[in-house]
Amino acid sequence: MFSDRFDQLVQALRILPSVGPKSAQRMALHLIMKNREGAVGLAHALNEATSYIHECSICHSLTEDEVCNICASHDRDAHLLCVVESPADVMAIEQSGSFRGKYHVLGGHLSPLDGIGPDEIGIPYLVQRLSDGNITEVILATNATVEGQATAHYLVEATKHLPVQMTRIAQGVPQGGELEYVDSHTLSQAVHNRMRMK
Amino acid sequence: MFSDRFDQLVQALRILPSVGPKSAQRMALHLIMKNREGAVGLAHALNEATSYIHECSICHSLTEDEVCNICASHDRDAHLLCVVESPADVMAIEQSGSFRGKYHVLGGHLSPLDGIGPDEIGIPYLVQRLSDGNITEVILATNATVEGQATAHYLVEATKHLPVQMTRIAQGVPQGGELEYVDSHTLSQAVHNRMRMK
Ligand SMILES: [Zn+2]
Ligand SMILES: [Zn+2]
Repeated sequence: MFSDRFDQLVQALRILPSVGPKSAQRMALHLIMKNREGAVGLAHALNEATSYIHECSICHSLTEDEVCNICASHDRDAHLLCVVESPADVMAIEQSGSFRGKYHVLGGHLSPLDGIGPDEIGIPYLVQRLSDGNITEVILATNATVEGQATAHYLVEATKHLPVQMTRIAQGVPQGGELEYVDSHTLSQAVHNRMRMK
Repeated sequence: MFSDRFDQLVQALRILPSVGPKSAQRMALHLIMKNREGAVGLAHALNEATSYIHECSICHSLTEDEVCNICASHDRDAHLLCVVESPADVMAIEQSGSFRGKYHVLGGHLSPLDGIGPDEIGIPYLVQRLSDGNITEVILATNATVEGQATAHYLVEATKHLPVQMTRIAQGVPQGGELEYVDSHTLSQAVHNRMRMK
């Protein structure tokens, strides 16, 4: 529109999730007209983050150091390991404040049609982690999708020889979920997995 | 969350319009996990745009050169001048494809309570532009807000001595607007400014 560099900024903003052409234009105009200092700060933050953030060498979550805060922490229960698909899941569980153990990030889920087998998501390394004998319970927190379920079941099989308890996060009706708006698959699962109250 | 630089990136993304804490986190994770190359490209585009884009010396819209494409163009009608509040309005009108003249960006609207008078939005400079005698019609396309209306009326007064036709963009029910959802002020204006069809 105004100049090549303006159009290039609009294009560059399109890489952000759920930012379409109209919002990218609005963002570019906002930055150029109202907050150039913020734009320069954002450029700096992007360069710093991409240069310094990498995988934790133990759990494969994100860190700037050799080992992430959670792996390094002595306040977290080292007997309890939560297995998730991605760092986004670590973030979600941490923000729920419901877990005080350690994590293991697979970096995906089994998907044979896409050529993603156990080796591609580091299952041998996870089995090795569990063989050390320090971990007594593994909470399988892969997604409640077909692939996430298959991955969880595969992990149960792959660790059958180890004296480690394997649990799966509960699946059912979400908190505040009104039954009439819950999909029928979730509902039938919730009925099937009903819990005794008395 | 994962590290200081991750948190700084999340904070930096918050300067984007309508990006709250949750979307900023989602964006940061997406960039770090899925598109580092895009993130570096975005940083570059931000630095380039903030370094090279400035006001056009004639119309005060945005450009990388001394004078913007529209001011420099010989294909645009130099007798017709559209006065708007901001470069965002130039963009909106250009994208409507409804105007082939030149622009004048005020950079705001009159707002006496905020200390913004005629000098602050360069009205003397606009009057001088109109005094050159080249422009025969001015389309007042300030916003249809109280301040935009007041600014348009002020401009009519301030140019009374010049042989220039002053028009105002039409106000009424938007295309596709269903009457029941149009606010009553717009509706009463639309009735008042009704146009004869036969
Ligand atoms: Zn770690
Ligand atoms: Zn210009």
